[in-house]
Amino acid sequence: MQRRAFLAGGAAAPVSRRAGGRLSREDLPTPALLLDLDAFERNIARMSRFARDHHRALRPHGKTHKCPEIAKVLIRAGAVGCCAAKLSEAEVFAREGVTGLLVTTEVIGKPKIERAVRLASRNRDIIFCVDNLQNARELNEAAGAGRVRLNVAVDLHVGGRTGVLPGEPALALAEWIDSSPNLKLAGIQAYAGHASHVVGFEERAKTSRQAMAQAVETRRLFEKKGLPCPLLTGASTGTYSIDAEIDGITELQPGSFIFMDLDYRRIGGREGSEYRDFEPALSVLTTVVSQPTPRMAIVDGGFKAFSTDKPFMPEAKGIRNMPYVWAGDEHGRLDLTNASAPVKVGDRIEFIVPHCDPSVNLYDRIYCLRGESVEAEWPIAARGMSQ
Amino acid sequence: MQRRAFLAGGAAAPVSRRAGGRLSREDLPTPALLLDLDAFERNIARMSRFARDHHRALRPHGKTHKCPEIAKVLIRAGAVGCCAAKLSEAEVFAREGVTGLLVTTEVIGKPKIERAVRLASRNRDIIFCVDNLQNARELNEAAGAGRVRLNVAVDLHVGGRTGVLPGEPALALAEWIDSSPNLKLAGIQAYAGHASHVVGFEERAKTSRQAMAQAVETRRLFEKKGLPCPLLTGASTGTYSIDAEIDGITELQPGSFIFMDLDYRRIGGREGSEYRDFEPALSVLTTVVSQPTPRMAIVDGGFKAFSTDKPFMPEAKGIRNMPYVWAGDEHGRLDLTNASAPVKVGDRIEFIVPHCDPSVNLYDRIYCLRGESVEAEWPIAARGMSQ
Repeated sequence: MQRRAFLAGGAAAPVSRRAGGRLSREDLPTPALLLDLDAFERNIARMSRFARDHHRALRPHGKTHKCPEIAKVLIRAGAVGCCAAKLSEAEVFAREGVTGLLVTTEVIGKPKIERAVRLASRNRDIIFCVDNLQNARELNEAAGAGRVRLNVAVDLHVGGRTGVLPGEPALALAEWIDSSPNLKLAGIQAYAGHASHVVGFEERAKTSRQAMAQAVETRRLFEKKGLPCPLLTGASTGTYSIDAEIDGITELQPGSFIFMDLDYRRIGGREGSEYRDFEPALSVLTTVVSQPTPRMAIVDGGFKAFSTDKPFMPEAKGIRNMPYVWAGDEHGRLDLTNASAPVKVGDRIEFIVPHCDPSVNLYDRIYCLRGESVEAEWPIAARGMSQ
Repeated sequence: MQRRAFLAGGAAAPVSRRAGGRLSREDLPTPALLLDLDAFERNIARMSRFARDHHRALRPHGKTHKCPEIAKVLIRAGAVGCCAAKLSEAEVFAREGVTGLLVTTEVIGKPKIERAVRLASRNRDIIFCVDNLQNARELNEAAGAGRVRLNVAVDLHVGGRTGVLPGEPALALAEWIDSSPNLKLAGIQAYAGHASHVVGFEERAKTSRQAMAQAVETRRLFEKKGLPCPLLTGASTGTYSIDAEIDGITELQPGSFIFMDLDYRRIGGREGSEYRDFEPALSVLTTVVSQPTPRMAIVDGGFKAFSTDKPFMPEAKGIRNMPYVWAGDEHGRLDLTNASAPVKVGDRIEFIVPHCDPSVNLYDRIYCLRGESVEAEWPIAARGMSQ
């Protein structure tokens, strides 16, 4: 048990320790976020081996875990660094010693640009994304004032989110960056968010290939014009094995593979209707706090314990045919009619989450389990850092 | 600007201060949670006056705001205390000096029961809810060991969540509590969660009256048997004015009225199709970080900036006909086709949230605005305290 890590976890969450001081799953106050370390380590080993075998750099997305300890585990397993969705998330990772940061959302407005320059002055390898000229000008100016040279990637619009249009508009921006004194063109980011969760492998592959073809073509255009473009970063847990077959993509930035969730499980794999490249390693532990009738039990996890952005409910582990439905902010209701095991007040029930990233963002710490034993307790230090 | 409060807010969120040190809305890093103090104060004045006029105690639910400063504002305005959904939430409120706590979810299992007894030994007026005999026995035993007498309310199942069945089952539990040496029967909690959000005033009134009739009847049964029952607490922002007309309900525990949200706005008022008893006082401020095409803008708030448990999207303030759709964990996409005002990168756009409680639970602090000026910055000290 890492006592310092526990203390760093923020507000008090008193936990009783058994004689001997070793924490067990049974000691944890619920709702609690759990990590199955065996499954987590296998997931990381699989993705690391895949990236190595396919000669792609791996820079997993930190927005999934927001946990510096996990970023460091991934780097020790061969990752070149860690993506951060936002500047404030990157600041936390950097403060905790995570290297090779890539901030995947544009940094907009003077106060944040000044923070980005301060961050870069202490972390020279950090890369920022840019998708418009005005922002590039402001970054260049602030970098000059801060006496740093900022690494910037051109963020391409190949999905439904941010980015400059591929082809000529991206080229014009890249040429401006390359000619500016205080910015260094790092390459291209192309994240096809709309492809990641397409159900059915072939359909997903088609969507991702169409999106990423524009990125590869834009990279060729840059190089034809003599612009350096060593980086083309993209891909998700849904598309990593598709994108790694596309020539020209140099780096994969998947996030969810370390944890998995119900949403990724249903998208289908290369073979078969279930996606089984990675194992579920994340869960939420709850307690049955009430049983108003023999067929109904209430657990202590609701909207504040699970993500709610996907159209499915948390799924119980170990007990079959026991549907969960939301019962508000703090509670979930279990239908025991056909449950495969009896349930009573005080029982602890573990659930796989619908969507990992926003679920993790609800917790201050993740309890790392080896079997029944709590081997570590890692602060989710960048939780809430969406700025 | 309360610097101590700002520091207490947890992890660093650097904010530039204008010359003079006064913060303005424009200085806030986004996404940011905003409170319109004028609207907030009017909402509180209205509910306080209503409760006073109807001779009902008001114990607003702290799960909505999780903010000790707000609990204290409400108590200064006449509230008898503050509800807390969970033990860990109550611990935070107590630590910050909030009195009159009522923990609305059962406290289950030895470690939490021991914490509850410790909390009660320092906060003699705290009330806990019980809905089963085994739990009552354990509370009584722990209270004896801790040399305190615990105030407990019988939690009635009148909605879709926790509680013992009304009538005889509740009576049996109340009699046991009343005869136990270390528990003091405080009365009844009856929260009809299923009634709160029923659309249409008459339909909602019917649902709530049916549910609460069982509670009133159970209270009469207690009193007939000579059991003290000074408390019958229940009601929500959706039902407060319905339940206050029911004889026998002594206390209202609404939460959302201080903030309001899109979900409560659409449920309909006593007159008309929009619920206008209270004003929207809560919003999330975002920044446009990208504009990939003339008709599309991307803001920096997604699943981690807004609640997602209701079937509607955040609604922009000030600009009409500009639908928002989710664009993942960190982003939202705006359709500018028919927007009533032009939008460009760097613009700051404020949104009313779909559901206030789980939205607030995503933030470490709430910025309190008087017009454009940030008058205070309150830590959401019990954020994440769902245990």
